[in-house]
Amino acid sequence: MYQEISFASDNCAGVHAEVMKALNNANEGYVNSYGEDAYTEKAVKTFRKHFGEETEIFFVYNGTAANVLGLTQGTSSFKTIYCSDSAHIHVDECGAMERIGGCKVQAIPSADGKISAKDIEPYMQGVGVEHRSQPGVISITQPTEYGTVYTAAEIKALCQFAHEKNMILHMDGARLANAAVSLGMPFRQFTRDCGVDLLSFGGTKNGLMFGEAVLFFNPAVAEDFKYLRKQGMQLHSKMRFIAVQFETLMRRVLWKESAEHANRMAQYLHEKLLILKDIKITKPVQANVVFATLPRRIIPPLQQKYQFLVWNESENEVRLMTSFLTEESHVKALVNDVEKLLHSE
Amino acid sequence: MYQEISFASDNCAGVHAEVMKALNNANEGYVNSYGEDAYTEKAVKTFRKHFGEETEIFFVYNGTAANVLGLTQGTSSFKTIYCSDSAHIHVDECGAMERIGGCKVQAIPSADGKISAKDIEPYMQGVGVEHRSQPGVISITQPTEYGTVYTAAEIKALCQFAHEKNMILHMDGARLANAAVSLGMPFRQFTRDCGVDLLSFGGTKNGLMFGEAVLFFNPAVAEDFKYLRKQGMQLHSKMRFIAVQFETLMRRVLWKESAEHANRMAQYLHEKLLILKDIKITKPVQANVVFATLPRRIIPPLQQKYQFLVWNESENEVRLMTSFLTEESHVKALVNDVEKLLHSE
Amino acid sequence: MYQEISFASDNCAGVHAEVMKALNNANEGYVNSYGEDAYTEKAVKTFRKHFGEETEIFFVYNGTAANVLGLTQGTSSFKTIYCSDSAHIHVDECGAMERIGGCKVQAIPSADGKISAKDIEPYMQGVGVEHRSQPGVISITQPTEYGTVYTAAEIKALCQFAHEKNMILHMDGARLANAAVSLGMPFRQFTRDCGVDLLSFGGTKNGLMFGEAVLFFNPAVAEDFKYLRKQGMQLHSKMRFIAVQFETLMRRVLWKESAEHANRMAQYLHEKLLILKDIKITKPVQANVVFATLPRRIIPPLQQKYQFLVWNESENEVRLMTSFLTEESHVKALVNDVEKLLHSE
Amino acid sequence: MYQEISFASDNCAGVHAEVMKALNNANEGYVNSYGEDAYTEKAVKTFRKHFGEETEIFFVYNGTAANVLGLTQGTSSFKTIYCSDSAHIHVDECGAMERIGGCKVQAIPSADGKISAKDIEPYMQGVGVEHRSQPGVISITQPTEYGTVYTAAEIKALCQFAHEKNMILHMDGARLANAAVSLGMPFRQFTRDCGVDLLSFGGTKNGLMFGEAVLFFNPAVAEDFKYLRKQGMQLHSKMRFIAVQFETLMRRVLWKESAEHANRMAQYLHEKLLILKDIKITKPVQANVVFATLPRRIIPPLQQKYQFLVWNESENEVRLMTSFLTEESHVKALVNDVEKLLHSE
Repeated sequence: MYQEISFASDNCAGVHAEVMKALNNANEGYVNSYGEDAYTEKAVKTFRKHFGEETEIFFVYNGTAANVLGLTQGTSSFKTIYCSDSAHIHVDECGAMERIGGCKVQAIPSADGKISAKDIEPYMQGVGVEHRSQPGVISITQPTEYGTVYTAAEIKALCQFAHEKNMILHMDGARLANAAVSLGMPFRQFTRDCGVDLLSFGGTKNGLMFGEAVLFFNPAVAEDFKYLRKQGMQLHSKMRFIAVQFETLMRRVLWKESAEHANRMAQYLHEKLLILKDIKITKPVQANVVFATLPRRIIPPLQQKYQFLVWNESENEVRLMTSFLTEESHVKALVNDVEKLLHSE
Repeated sequence: MYQEISFASDNCAGVHAEVMKALNNANEGYVNSYGEDAYTEKAVKTFRKHFGEETEIFFVYNGTAANVLGLTQGTSSFKTIYCSDSAHIHVDECGAMERIGGCKVQAIPSADGKISAKDIEPYMQGVGVEHRSQPGVISITQPTEYGTVYTAAEIKALCQFAHEKNMILHMDGARLANAAVSLGMPFRQFTRDCGVDLLSFGGTKNGLMFGEAVLFFNPAVAEDFKYLRKQGMQLHSKMRFIAVQFETLMRRVLWKESAEHANRMAQYLHEKLLILKDIKITKPVQANVVFATLPRRIIPPLQQKYQFLVWNESENEVRLMTSFLTEESHVKALVNDVEKLLHSE
Repeated sequence: MYQEISFASDNCAGVHAEVMKALNNANEGYVNSYGEDAYTEKAVKTFRKHFGEETEIFFVYNGTAANVLGLTQGTSSFKTIYCSDSAHIHVDECGAMERIGGCKVQAIPSADGKISAKDIEPYMQGVGVEHRSQPGVISITQPTEYGTVYTAAEIKALCQFAHEKNMILHMDGARLANAAVSLGMPFRQFTRDCGVDLLSFGGTKNGLMFGEAVLFFNPAVAEDFKYLRKQGMQLHSKMRFIAVQFETLMRRVLWKESAEHANRMAQYLHEKLLILKDIKITKPVQANVVFATLPRRIIPPLQQKYQFLVWNESENEVRLMTSFLTEESHVKALVNDVEKLLHSE
Repeated sequence: MYQEISFASDNCAGVHAEVMKALNNANEGYVNSYGEDAYTEKAVKTFRKHFGEETEIFFVYNGTAANVLGLTQGTSSFKTIYCSDSAHIHVDECGAMERIGGCKVQAIPSADGKISAKDIEPYMQGVGVEHRSQPGVISITQPTEYGTVYTAAEIKALCQFAHEKNMILHMDGARLANAAVSLGMPFRQFTRDCGVDLLSFGGTKNGLMFGEAVLFFNPAVAEDFKYLRKQGMQLHSKMRFIAVQFETLMRRVLWKESAEHANRMAQYLHEKLLILKDIKITKPVQANVVFATLPRRIIPPLQQKYQFLVWNESENEVRLMTSFLTEESHVKALVNDVEKLLHSE
């Protein structure tokens, strides 16, 4: 039913043992449904320790919902969301943002997944003109879908630009812990404190079974969001089971340990591949993923043994992702097989 | 963090021990995400054993999503969904059907939660006239929100009427197992075999942690539903954890044992209350819930000890719900306290 | 290509001669498009003379759009719009409100098309509970679809109730001029001054070729509505041709003369029918329409000569509508034929 | 109230005298509303003479609605519409396609407003993968927003490509008459006969007061569109007044004369500007518009006398549009003033 080793996605790893333990422990007796329970209260408190007291936190089922419902709440249907052309909301959510929020999503070409004010500005035509969808949101992914990480200065600059132009800044943090570890900063320092307005905080990719969070740093913007969440089909009845997972992840150091481990495994893989001839690392390795081009002939035999994504078919670029579950031995095995295949010609 | 006894909702009970065990067991190694895995394949096969080979099954997160996305797929925005005025899709989903599907939801007054062709017909005006939202779907809840159960003959008649009028029949089966047990019939006999087109199959209320299923009995209607599910923010990445729960619930007898137990506890409660003076049972008790009117003065003290819903404030009607977790001793304790309060004046 | 006499609808009458003349006159040279023109400025000014300086006025194409876009602007998708079960937004707009605004439309049973706070209150359950669509708007039609007219006191009471409950009051004024004439009041007195928040002001049914207006009495609510109008496909390019029609209608007395005439014709018809045996007037005649039951046998021969609607097939109830185009001789001819048919058995 | 001369837009010209005459003539007596009338029947017949008997024609109010409702009918919310980055549906409809259809609109960079299969293909990733919005429609504007005209061969190639990839081909023909005249072809030859599936046929820009048409060349695709039109707030009550305009435009040669005249005026302007030093024509002049760069200093004084659009502020590019109303003397006056300003330094 499962593979021993995989570099396909952090989604393919299961649930962290501590999280699973917490789920088992929470399964006692009757608990109020729909978030009116002590688990949820505790989890919210823990989040507020990380992000500040005035933060509003709402749990939803998955990352698509965190992005789409948060953005629907934070902007208007006649506004445009600017994002990188590799952004999850543009590429990987089957048009959910357009369908649910009614917004225009304007993808900005970007080589490494990051965008800047300079990239966005040319697309902001017709401000105040009713024929045009109006500037509404800058949405960035941290770390990006390419595993690159915005610096706090870059985020601050983007937020400033957004606010000057009456936009908000949304951060898709499906793997935010990996960014925090990469930057060596507490969450707050490179989100709220830089001016981020709206945050999708990911849990599933860092060892939860299910559950993501929407964070509003301006409570006024969160007003009535509970109705939109329910109407958006994202209010879980047995909420204790999302809450207790987040509480476990966020309370002490689990989020950090897991993300550190995943990032370290990516660095390790990076170093190992870097020295191999005919392998080219194509994106800076700053989080838990390595993008590389391999000789075309070695991809199929490698895929028979390990799962990973061929990212760009025409350029033989592959994506190798690590997670809390990746072991050093996995990396060694993979690299070993790559080497063998490289020499086997 | 929890209550020992509660009659508030089957949503307040946690996860059945066997289901939790299965979740723990499934947490091994790497498994393909988004449903491309052996757990999902197995769960789908098990569902097909119950409902027939040609059934299309899609897992989603919750019951609102199962109803709303299934119905959005099965009808058109310019069509009307007829349902009882106590239907979950009308009352308890914050207008999700209207927001996501764009449909008109026409609630039909009903005392016991059931509706018939005769009730619906007066609302079907202007067929073929473009000014009117057109007849699209009859949606029934089985068992109803009042715990009443449609007979197979009633369902068959409704399906026939629906099909004659070019409508489909949707069944909200959030507690379908309780209906199956009540009717003493296999699932298929009172759904697909009666002509039901679209089924929301509930797991959470019968002991799952999360997860519901949408079943299409006509595979042609399910075409492209995978895109709507993703766009509707309901595709789970770590799908194995929904699949393995359903597989556990449905494979052998767990669904049945749990539902039988819950129904039996409701009957037991029913019998105990029936003989008390000043208590009136207000709905036929056919599934896992008892509706009753109590003297107003005893409700507040009772609520201090037990959780339950005051359904109709002005009539002192309360809802007492049982689940797989309810024990005979819980019922006895409740009834005992009711008796004491009745005599304590 | 046309009928000499019709009682089918005021929509079947064409364009008032003065309006047509204005259209011809406005067809000179180049004029800025999309409302940036002197005609629009003038029309807006004229509206403000009727309704007050702070009124925001937006022209759209038809009544459905005026209702649906105005309401979408004025409320939220997770809120409910309460209206009579004969309301145009519920019955005659093919579910546009649900599709475009995403709102729940809750129809309130009403015999004469009017609703009161007492009628609405039982439907307002679960305020503040996220499972329920929340109270958002009371929408009334003035005059109603049955030709009855709310008094200023009734409107005031409804507005007060709405505001107490944090709702807004929307008035569908597709035939508002007929109500004004019936009440003998200037527009403002029974709209804005009673507390109405949002008004759909109809032109087409009172002699325009096309064009309706959305009026916001609280300018803050109208903010950014220009984008929603454009996104809602209702911004006319050659706006001068809507504006000049409204300017003509509203500037002096045309709106009044036309509506007075239509109402008078309805009263005349009413009086004539009242004295006939076997004819029953079924709704109070307060605007430009008469509802009556006729012996079933006389309906088909009458329809061969005159167009009108059979409103309620099973009760032989017909709708006879008058307009600015109706002449006394039309009424006489109709009544004459009714009499003949009554005696011809 | 108006300008004598304008090159701002064909929307600024009023109504063609013959069309206005027809409107006046149609204003007689009572006519059935909502399209159940002889005018509409006749107009539909006339359209079918141009486009073939099996064509389904629906009148709506404006071009945005023709595009958006036609496309909503023709595709699904989880599909992508590919268009040029200057396309009206992307740039000038305030995100209506996303809001109403729920679709992703993917703009393809294009210098002259035209796109080809080769341009589109790189954007078609993940076919069959539920995470991705699926290829749905290629939408082209004919003539483009830059006044360039697709050849029949180009259209045929695009249609073939679209159909091979299970997409449909939509043509935004807001100025289709200008393209027909430019190509010297009957409408059918470069639309339906090339494989176009769905056509927005524009009237307003060619001398109508209001009204556009949606044409489906496959009647099966048009099924139930009447409900979507009504729900989309685009069903006109006094339909005779849209129909008679189209009937007048399309019956004999008015559409052609008007478009020929407008195109000729653009060519005339083109030739006059071409020979002026310091003026650069920036797009091929193939329909009724000239794009040119002027010395920056002469733009403001020129704008004081003539209305036109500054298309690209940073490049001093202006748009000069002609219409049925443009006279040779207008062009001469403009060019004369340009020359004077050029020499006045």
